[in-house]
Amino acid sequence: MTVVKSTLPEPARRVAGDALQSTLVDLLGISLIGKQAHWNIVGPRFRSIHLQLDEVVSVARSYADTVAERSAALGVPPDGRPETIAAAYTLPGSKEGWVRDGEVVQLIADTLETAIGRLRERVDATAEPDPMTQDLLIGITRELEKQRWMFDAENWPRGE
Amino acid sequence: MTVVKSTLPEPARRVAGDALQSTLVDLLGISLIGKQAHWNIVGPRFRSIHLQLDEVVSVARSYADTVAERSAALGVPPDGRPETIAAAYTLPGSKEGWVRDGEVVQLIADTLETAIGRLRERVDATAEPDPMTQDLLIGITRELEKQRWMFDAENWPRGE
Amino acid sequence: MTVVKSTLPEPARRVAGDALQSTLVDLLGISLIGKQAHWNIVGPRFRSIHLQLDEVVSVARSYADTVAERSAALGVPPDGRPETIAAAYTLPGSKEGWVRDGEVVQLIADTLETAIGRLRERVDATAEPDPMTQDLLIGITRELEKQRWMFDAENWPRGE
Amino acid sequence: MTVVKSTLPEPARRVAGDALQSTLVDLLGISLIGKQAHWNIVGPRFRSIHLQLDEVVSVARSYADTVAERSAALGVPPDGRPETIAAAYTLPGSKEGWVRDGEVVQLIADTLETAIGRLRERVDATAEPDPMTQDLLIGITRELEKQRWMFDAENWPRGE
Amino acid sequence: MTVVKSTLPEPARRVAGDALQSTLVDLLGISLIGKQAHWNIVGPRFRSIHLQLDEVVSVARSYADTVAERSAALGVPPDGRPETIAAAYTLPGSKEGWVRDGEVVQLIADTLETAIGRLRERVDATAEPDPMTQDLLIGITRELEKQRWMFDAENWPRGE
Amino acid sequence: MTVVKSTLPEPARRVAGDALQSTLVDLLGISLIGKQAHWNIVGPRFRSIHLQLDEVVSVARSYADTVAERSAALGVPPDGRPETIAAAYTLPGSKEGWVRDGEVVQLIADTLETAIGRLRERVDATAEPDPMTQDLLIGITRELEKQRWMFDAENWPRGE
Amino acid sequence: MTVVKSTLPEPARRVAGDALQSTLVDLLGISLIGKQAHWNIVGPRFRSIHLQLDEVVSVARSYADTVAERSAALGVPPDGRPETIAAAYTLPGSKEGWVRDGEVVQLIADTLETAIGRLRERVDATAEPDPMTQDLLIGITRELEKQRWMFDAENWPRGE
Amino acid sequence: MTVVKSTLPEPARRVAGDALQSTLVDLLGISLIGKQAHWNIVGPRFRSIHLQLDEVVSVARSYADTVAERSAALGVPPDGRPETIAAAYTLPGSKEGWVRDGEVVQLIADTLETAIGRLRERVDATAEPDPMTQDLLIGITRELEKQRWMFDAENWPRGE
Amino acid sequence: MTVVKSTLPEPARRVAGDALQSTLVDLLGISLIGKQAHWNIVGPRFRSIHLQLDEVVSVARSYADTVAERSAALGVPPDGRPETIAAAYTLPGSKEGWVRDGEVVQLIADTLETAIGRLRERVDATAEPDPMTQDLLIGITRELEKQRWMFDAENWPRGE
Amino acid sequence: MTVVKSTLPEPARRVAGDALQSTLVDLLGISLIGKQAHWNIVGPRFRSIHLQLDEVVSVARSYADTVAERSAALGVPPDGRPETIAAAYTLPGSKEGWVRDGEVVQLIADTLETAIGRLRERVDATAEPDPMTQDLLIGITRELEKQRWMFDAENWPRGE
Amino acid sequence: MTVVKSTLPEPARRVAGDALQSTLVDLLGISLIGKQAHWNIVGPRFRSIHLQLDEVVSVARSYADTVAERSAALGVPPDGRPETIAAAYTLPGSKEGWVRDGEVVQLIADTLETAIGRLRERVDATAEPDPMTQDLLIGITRELEKQRWMFDAENWPRGE
Amino acid sequence: MTVVKSTLPEPARRVAGDALQSTLVDLLGISLIGKQAHWNIVGPRFRSIHLQLDEVVSVARSYADTVAERSAALGVPPDGRPETIAAAYTLPGSKEGWVRDGEVVQLIADTLETAIGRLRERVDATAEPDPMTQDLLIGITRELEKQRWMFDAENWPRGE
Repeated sequence: MTVVKSTLPEPARRVAGDALQSTLVDLLGISLIGKQAHWNIVGPRFRSIHLQLDEVVSVARSYADTVAERSAALGVPPDGRPETIAAAYTLPGSKEGWVRDGEVVQLIADTLETAIGRLRERVDATAEPDPMTQDLLIGITRELEKQRWMFDAENWPRGE
Repeated sequence: MTVVKSTLPEPARRVAGDALQSTLVDLLGISLIGKQAHWNIVGPRFRSIHLQLDEVVSVARSYADTVAERSAALGVPPDGRPETIAAAYTLPGSKEGWVRDGEVVQLIADTLETAIGRLRERVDATAEPDPMTQDLLIGITRELEKQRWMFDAENWPRGE
Repeated sequence: MTVVKSTLPEPARRVAGDALQSTLVDLLGISLIGKQAHWNIVGPRFRSIHLQLDEVVSVARSYADTVAERSAALGVPPDGRPETIAAAYTLPGSKEGWVRDGEVVQLIADTLETAIGRLRERVDATAEPDPMTQDLLIGITRELEKQRWMFDAENWPRGE
Repeated sequence: MTVVKSTLPEPARRVAGDALQSTLVDLLGISLIGKQAHWNIVGPRFRSIHLQLDEVVSVARSYADTVAERSAALGVPPDGRPETIAAAYTLPGSKEGWVRDGEVVQLIADTLETAIGRLRERVDATAEPDPMTQDLLIGITRELEKQRWMFDAENWPRGE
Repeated sequence: MTVVKSTLPEPARRVAGDALQSTLVDLLGISLIGKQAHWNIVGPRFRSIHLQLDEVVSVARSYADTVAERSAALGVPPDGRPETIAAAYTLPGSKEGWVRDGEVVQLIADTLETAIGRLRERVDATAEPDPMTQDLLIGITRELEKQRWMFDAENWPRGE
Repeated sequence: MTVVKSTLPEPARRVAGDALQSTLVDLLGISLIGKQAHWNIVGPRFRSIHLQLDEVVSVARSYADTVAERSAALGVPPDGRPETIAAAYTLPGSKEGWVRDGEVVQLIADTLETAIGRLRERVDATAEPDPMTQDLLIGITRELEKQRWMFDAENWPRGE
Repeated sequence: MTVVKSTLPEPARRVAGDALQSTLVDLLGISLIGKQAHWNIVGPRFRSIHLQLDEVVSVARSYADTVAERSAALGVPPDGRPETIAAAYTLPGSKEGWVRDGEVVQLIADTLETAIGRLRERVDATAEPDPMTQDLLIGITRELEKQRWMFDAENWPRGE
Repeated sequence: MTVVKSTLPEPARRVAGDALQSTLVDLLGISLIGKQAHWNIVGPRFRSIHLQLDEVVSVARSYADTVAERSAALGVPPDGRPETIAAAYTLPGSKEGWVRDGEVVQLIADTLETAIGRLRERVDATAEPDPMTQDLLIGITRELEKQRWMFDAENWPRGE
Repeated sequence: MTVVKSTLPEPARRVAGDALQSTLVDLLGISLIGKQAHWNIVGPRFRSIHLQLDEVVSVARSYADTVAERSAALGVPPDGRPETIAAAYTLPGSKEGWVRDGEVVQLIADTLETAIGRLRERVDATAEPDPMTQDLLIGITRELEKQRWMFDAENWPRGE
Repeated sequence: MTVVKSTLPEPARRVAGDALQSTLVDLLGISLIGKQAHWNIVGPRFRSIHLQLDEVVSVARSYADTVAERSAALGVPPDGRPETIAAAYTLPGSKEGWVRDGEVVQLIADTLETAIGRLRERVDATAEPDPMTQDLLIGITRELEKQRWMFDAENWPRGE
Repeated sequence: MTVVKSTLPEPARRVAGDALQSTLVDLLGISLIGKQAHWNIVGPRFRSIHLQLDEVVSVARSYADTVAERSAALGVPPDGRPETIAAAYTLPGSKEGWVRDGEVVQLIADTLETAIGRLRERVDATAEPDPMTQDLLIGITRELEKQRWMFDAENWPRGE
Repeated sequence: MTVVKSTLPEPARRVAGDALQSTLVDLLGISLIGKQAHWNIVGPRFRSIHLQLDEVVSVARSYADTVAERSAALGVPPDGRPETIAAAYTLPGSKEGWVRDGEVVQLIADTLETAIGRLRERVDATAEPDPMTQDLLIGITRELEKQRWMFDAENWPRGE
């Protein structure tokens, strides 16, 4: 017996469910990486980027919750357990220990850029099967693109 | 050259740093497990426990931040990366998929109880080397004990 | 002479106007049915569902206002008069008098499921003639799907 | 077996219950009529009255909730379903489509005036059987009289 | 010499003063009993009723303050000392130790029902001597009747 | 032609209108007298009473507005012009210039006591013709009695 | 013996005190006239001007308090008693009873214009003796000129 | 070397960038025109439309910021300099000096109507190259259509 | 079977439980005594101390809740029933009827001083068995010492 | 016929009107330039200055509104249309495209410095004809001087 | 090379800078003296004056910040270091240890009176060289005169 | 005769009093030094550190108040007068005039480090005599260590 019924037919449910599960892992990973950098950053831009990272974390946490609840609403139980994140997370990660401010900026810009590329594929994939899920992914993509721009603008001239 | 200087002598710094790092992993793990249950719970007590879990998550996230920043303040870079949590987390975890409400209550009560036992050891261990860290752990322990009581009271009569 | 001018050509205006008028009736009906259940529910889950119903009502009222004003903005006068709702409302209704909590959960889950099915048709129908209206209906559908999930999760195991 | 017990003896309960049920229908009707006018009004006073109508709707919705819960508190299940409102509502209604601002002002003033006359009778009828209900109806009457005055003052000189 | 002058003639002052003093004891007793249950409740409905009890306590405390200050305003010093409450409180009390959720619901419903019966007598008694005091007691009665209904609706089917 | 229609028959309208007009003058007078004392008080209790007077003024202004709008709602134009207040105000007034704190306390206690006596007569007079107006006057009387008590309690032992 | 000492020498104190006392009477008068119009206005612009008048009243009350406290701060006891306002107020007043909206707009524009003319004289008079008082009067003048403009703009074309 | 990297391939970037730049100019122009009317409006509807215009300005400013930051996020530097607006703005403008209220309503309704027509073209143009930009433009169009309706409804009967 | 499990071994649980239960009675007693004085105080310092007492009551109520929940969290059901407070409260109480302001200040200073002495003993007693409970009692002691100082400073010179 | 009457005689009105119109253009220009820099800034100080620029824009917009309404209040219609700003703005402007952070700081410091020089001339010019306008310009000058200092302090050592 | 450029020519800069530096020392001294009294006051008026002193401290701290930033804005580095305050502060100071309430009132009244005398001289001195600085000092003087009046009024009859 | 009674025996009172007095001087000194740097900082990190310094000042002021009131609560009059701070302050101070951003960061990190070393000694010293004071000092130490870390992390690589 189905636990939570879906409002989507089966193949559509699977496509949307996969897109949401991958996005959930990306967002939870970003939220953990962002906090890691928030705590371990050093350098003259410490305070400015320390605060900026908390905005990224806040965005990532809030969307992770929305994405997971969207998955549940489609009858697909989301999976955000520590072992799942560790196994499935494929975006750039963080090294151990203190990190210089410039490195942090570069790391977050790269992480967001990769995440955006993957999101754009999911936006395409979900257009047909579930426009409601697509619309949610569109909003997430636009917000991450805004965050990425700010780290990229701050990262200029690169290598400085 | 030391990156962030410590206000503690070396052995004390190591004891406090270890206690904080273990606590950080426990709290981040609880925050992920709590969200997992928040999303996957089913059963007639869905709404009540769904909301209660968000309070646990909020407590765990907030204290994780304080604990990690305390570690940094002692010159010990905290580690809250996905792979670290997955490797170091030893409290009861969550199974995959939908979980019945009664099971969720039992799981969280058990998880918190184990976390509290470990915290009480760290409270003892840090008393001498760093009363500032001990005092923080005391506050965390008391809050988790309060959360545990509420799930335990809700779990009665057990097996129902 | 036209009273309020439309920014849409005629056939598009008719399609969008019809989709909005039907949605308006559904949402006003849900807001009245939701309040009826809010007042007449009895049983051990009284308080939890009593509060949850007010969230459904609040969502329905707020979207009804947005939908009606969207209709007006397209030059189509919306109709939310008592006699219109009574005549046009075709979602599952409520019986008279006190209703047991489990029955309420079932009723709202069913009502929302039917409403969602009808909304998904309108999302398809408005894609071409008016993407602005479609986007609004997408948002409403996603929100109602979230509400439905929570009642469905609470309704498990069914028949209990 | 009684579902919700009453704190009133039977005849008193019936009188108070009837007064509350009729008031509920009037208030729900006014809230729907008020929104209808809020959406369909046209003319140079559009914005001013558009906003004023939302205050009437807000008053009517809030009192409808209080009245229905008062009824439940007396052990009388309130009835606010679409079909009940459509059948029982006898105050002046609204025509279909756009309505000129002056007509709206006249309509609301008339509707409130009729509602007030009916409320004053219920204030008299409930004085003896249930002063708690009477006191509630007194408050509603005074508030509707205030709203009516503002539409009447705005309606002068009549026929303009 | 009179300490605080009264705006009421003597016999009226005595009647109103007695009604207020008895109400004060009832409300302070309810606030203590409500907190006792808030702390000692166990069972699957723990969280829902735990929160609901705080609303009862908040209502009781707030009205106790208003009632005591009304008494003082009439020149009658109110008495809310521990020994006075213990001696004068005659509503149903609470047993010692943990209490199952269903029992709590029954206890509060019974306590409020008894309190309401006594308040209705005081509403009658004060009508003539002091309508200002009567009006205050009417408001308290209506609020307690609302609270009682919610516990009664939650208590159904009784004996479950 | 009537400007603002009344919901009351003529004799009732006259009784209620007179009660409201007299109350309006009393309240506006109290608000002016209260501010006068707020500005001109001297003595060791300056700050405490300076603040207390602003609460009296705030109460008086707020009720004056409600009373005047109630009068308008009954079709009786209220009169709060300077010359009307000066001519019709018969409560104790204030002398010119600085006033010692003890004198201020005595003055406000006396002014409120006289106002309350007059209000109690109007409560009786309006019971029959307009319970909606009576209920408003009951609320005002109770609030002024509370304010009076606080000044009277502060005025003890008198003559100090 | 001086009650409240002045920080100004005698002639300066007299000039500033007179300017403040006249301003106090003007502002208290405007606040009463404004409320009178707020209550008695009729006509199609009722709501818009009813609300605008409350802003004028709020401005006038707030500045009256500041002006009176400035006077006290200079050792000059301010006089805002009803009889003083009635005797000293010389700005355009209000007629009795209901007033048509256009007439209200004209009246307030005229009253403010006259008040502004008198304030500009006091701005000149206080420049030398007390720049602190002058600066306060400058702020009041600018605010009243803003209020006047809005009524004047609303009054166009005059005679409509 | 690219300053801010784009997440879009080149041709898509150009289409989206053009659509955003034109929208930016329209919105900045509307915000300036709206303020101009806010300051220069005269006539009996002054206050009502004066306030309504500030809502249009607030909407236009807020969306202008979002649009410009979206452009930057795509690696296209936005241009909102005074000379650019003056050169590129092609919506209906405002004449110099005072403007009668009816003319203002007409002007804003016309300006918004033209802006909406241009936005609908950009919604079509961006669908393929960048759904994230399209979704933003859809939201802006819907909001401007709502604003336009309110001015159009207020503009009826036209020519009055 | 244990109802609520404890995270403390038995002897520690008993010591902590006793300390918390005694503190609970003291705090509930202080909250009732404080309100009693808040209502019955007379004298020239009425307002100042009337307000100060509400801060003491607020502190006592808030800590009583925390203490009782701490007890429950340790598996010890707290007891705050009227009869328990009356029987176990041993701090200085209040006499009946009106109390002069100076007497109130003396009474509260004495009550707090006695409570603090008893709390200091419990701080010592709980240090070993449960540092989490000790830390809570330390916080309560410090807050009550602050409150006591303010009444003591106000009580000087004593006997005045 | 004059549309909005002035409270100033003609020559004074012209001087004040000119000063206000020039200030309006400067402030609107600064608000557009500030936003342009807010969007196009790149470099390691991106976030810090991005936020600081929004404070400058907020100050400029708020004062522009006050200045324009002051002009209207003097009977001089303000002109803030795009073409007027483009034609009359003479402060340093912004180049096209991305701008390095250090350049932005220099540009804003220079722009504000020039604006302040022009404002100081207007402060002198308006002293005699209209002290109310002068006082407003004094406040604007002081605020812009504060903003300029912060950019200048940030610009040190120059050329870095 | 100048660090922070000035918008004032040299002699004006020196006069304004001196006036601001002296005012800074006075305000910081008052803030420290006010806190000292806030902590050490004893006597029956403890609470009332304890609170009043915090308002003085808050005013002094806030203006000190404004004054120091004004100085920096003129290119004059402000000096608020402990040794500078101790050396340059010449207003009446505070004795060591507990201070009786009446003495505190006298001390603050005297301190403010002296500060005001000095400020009035600086208001004169800065009129010509920098009206922006003068306007700030005018505002500070008026606020301190208001604070002084309240202590002076509270100090009456002197010697009591 | 003792003015404010102590709840501590004499030797304990002296130890705690000394620890609190030294801490008070350190915190007041830090608050003045912090503001001095807040005003005089120059360099490219101006805004970021300017804001961060206000957080340090806010922390220092708030704890200074708590520490001084704790001292008073123990019967030891605190001393925070300008001359006392100047004489007793021994932490690193600030030089005169403008200070480069990097120097400010170094200065605050050093000042906090020294303050923390002294606080840790007082934490040890007060453990026995007064755990309530110790607990307060523990909280202050932890907060200052957090502040120090942020300046130290910002100070890396040192000498840059």
